[in-house]
Amino acid sequence: MNNYLSKRAKSLSPSLTLAIAAKAKKLASEGIKVINFSVGEPDFNTPDFIVEAANIAMKEGKTKYTAASGIIELKKAVSQKLKDDNNLDYAPNQIVVSNGAKQSLHNAIQVLIDDGDEVIIPAPYWLTYPELTTISGGVAVCVMGSKENDYKITPEQLKKAITKKSKVLILNSPSNPMGTLYTENELKNIAKVVEKHDLFVISDEIYDELLYDGNTHYSIAQYSDKLKEKTVLVNGFSKSYAMTGWRIGYTASNKVIADAMDSLQSHTTSNPNTIAQWASVEALSNKKGKEFLKYMKETFDERRKFMVKLFEKMPHISFVPPTSAFYVMVDISKLFGKSFEGVVLKSAHQISEILLDNCKIATVPGEAFGASNFIRFSYSLSYEDIKIGLDCFNEFLLKIK
Amino acid sequence: MNNYLSKRAKSLSPSLTLAIAAKAKKLASEGIKVINFSVGEPDFNTPDFIVEAANIAMKEGKTKYTAASGIIELKKAVSQKLKDDNNLDYAPNQIVVSNGAKQSLHNAIQVLIDDGDEVIIPAPYWLTYPELTTISGGVAVCVMGSKENDYKITPEQLKKAITKKSKVLILNSPSNPMGTLYTENELKNIAKVVEKHDLFVISDEIYDELLYDGNTHYSIAQYSDKLKEKTVLVNGFSKSYAMTGWRIGYTASNKVIADAMDSLQSHTTSNPNTIAQWASVEALSNKKGKEFLKYMKETFDERRKFMVKLFEKMPHISFVPPTSAFYVMVDISKLFGKSFEGVVLKSAHQISEILLDNCKIATVPGEAFGASNFIRFSYSLSYEDIKIGLDCFNEFLLKIK
Repeated sequence: MNNYLSKRAKSLSPSLTLAIAAKAKKLASEGIKVINFSVGEPDFNTPDFIVEAANIAMKEGKTKYTAASGIIELKKAVSQKLKDDNNLDYAPNQIVVSNGAKQSLHNAIQVLIDDGDEVIIPAPYWLTYPELTTISGGVAVCVMGSKENDYKITPEQLKKAITKKSKVLILNSPSNPMGTLYTENELKNIAKVVEKHDLFVISDEIYDELLYDGNTHYSIAQYSDKLKEKTVLVNGFSKSYAMTGWRIGYTASNKVIADAMDSLQSHTTSNPNTIAQWASVEALSNKKGKEFLKYMKETFDERRKFMVKLFEKMPHISFVPPTSAFYVMVDISKLFGKSFEGVVLKSAHQISEILLDNCKIATVPGEAFGASNFIRFSYSLSYEDIKIGLDCFNEFLLKIK
Repeated sequence: MNNYLSKRAKSLSPSLTLAIAAKAKKLASEGIKVINFSVGEPDFNTPDFIVEAANIAMKEGKTKYTAASGIIELKKAVSQKLKDDNNLDYAPNQIVVSNGAKQSLHNAIQVLIDDGDEVIIPAPYWLTYPELTTISGGVAVCVMGSKENDYKITPEQLKKAITKKSKVLILNSPSNPMGTLYTENELKNIAKVVEKHDLFVISDEIYDELLYDGNTHYSIAQYSDKLKEKTVLVNGFSKSYAMTGWRIGYTASNKVIADAMDSLQSHTTSNPNTIAQWASVEALSNKKGKEFLKYMKETFDERRKFMVKLFEKMPHISFVPPTSAFYVMVDISKLFGKSFEGVVLKSAHQISEILLDNCKIATVPGEAFGASNFIRFSYSLSYEDIKIGLDCFNEFLLKIK
């Protein structure tokens, strides 16, 4: 039936979460409330001052094509942000603005990876990394962090994974799904190995603004000028400014890579939405932006503490205390082999399905992240929903035999 | 320097028009007015009712992720449009909404083309077609239409171009850059060959609403159910509703191809801008949409006639009378070997540069379209600018020796 599709199309993995998402949607359509712990975006509205800037832009006729890689005003604002936050110097022509950080990642991989090139991906990983690698003909080499190291990879693990075909390391700190963060020192030790083996780094820093417990954000590009030259820094407006639907991401890189991505993007999609670009300029340049960040971060932080407290009291499970983003990855592997209402538990996917059926809560099973011992819970939802949903999860756990 | 880039990145052609565009920009930045005949978008503002719908959507919080392939409301509206305009039946789940028709084309080629597959592209062509083919590993087989057939290809030409490796024919009717249109009968004759040789068709119909002289739009997908199954129909909102910067395009195809493109897009970019999707629903469902189309088309039609009259009086040049879109391709090949102010003329690119220097008019040299005998003039600009710019072009022609 589909034998006329390209190898590339056939290589795309069927979504591991589609069945659960479809079932959740079906329940919702039947009027049954499903509490959505699977959400991957802030449950905040885009701030009014950004919406208003978009409205003004539209009315001023800023609705035409822009340069494929974005308007100069936004490139300048991003350049300034990277200087202010990480003391990184990028000229505006080293910034490429795209239709979300996903396209930024895709562009970077497309211009760096040839058939057979290896991309090292620390696991648990965001599922898009290995898929994008495969789409570009690369080979995803996944390296699982150990429990002792909070599931972060060590320089020794990285060294072992490197072969003659290794070309790129994808780093994601702060991390989705783990909600953890490499310390500055950890990143420097990773950086040493990267530099020695002359790898490129794609550094996905999309959660850079959502750090708790006094942590601050360090980009691996800060390590040295040499490493900065070999790093494609990826970020965007989705998570920081509650702008997921606006689809504005960006890269900062050396000029050769930036030009190649610009050229690629000029053919594959052209510029991202013009109005959203102007809205993003406002997000970075209006002081209300910082106020919103502070407010959103504090709100998430309170929910995080609330959720952690609830999890701490539960039997059978464990988790790495999250210090960033808005997720908790819960280790449910101790349930495997035990049973719930006569059903033997054997996978995260199965447990996610049972939780949907029994608690009407949607979660993301760890298989989607290359981490089959886990289930991911987001805390981008209200206290009330967190409480109701996790109370039911607790009852489920108490019934395990 | 760039030897670390992927083969894909290295294969991207340097832009043939970048030098001219850069020079035009430089002149403008020096305060010199450049009349822009190179424009590829309507010089109309997006209609107010669409802007207002976008404003309402933002304020209602429609700023979150949507399904990667777009909101159901937009898919339904597109499905209805294809039924109303072309009597084509597509279920909403056969529609994939993307970041502009460019991404729609890219998706289609990515899921259909493997290394070495041949894509037949009638020339003169929109320069993105061969680039997208190359990016996907395909081989662009360009077939030049003959002057006698208004630069459209014939069924015989198509037959000759077909090999065992042929997989896709890209059709673009109405055509950019030619501003011409395949008649229903011509398309049916092409369709016979396509069906016989079991090719897929990517049918770029982005200019479907901009037809003059009483012409109507026929899609090759209407030819037969069998051919409809093998056609990926591409369209969008950019040209019809003056929404170029909003970046909303779409495909209609069989479900297998739609699912593959959906899956690909879910990894490479995710959904196009959410607000723009809602604005596009309004464009199709508000009756003001049709009124705007009528107004814009009449305006372009008057300019078209005005421009054609001016060209008709000019020496040395010829052109195919345009019946669609907003371009006139002017054959300047009779100038080659002649001279202007002592300089021997030898290419469209060179003449474009001379016109920019001498007349301060920006045009697109035909090399960009695989048609080196031509220069493209857009009439998406004011009467006054058309008059001033073409008067100077005429003076240039009168000085040719």
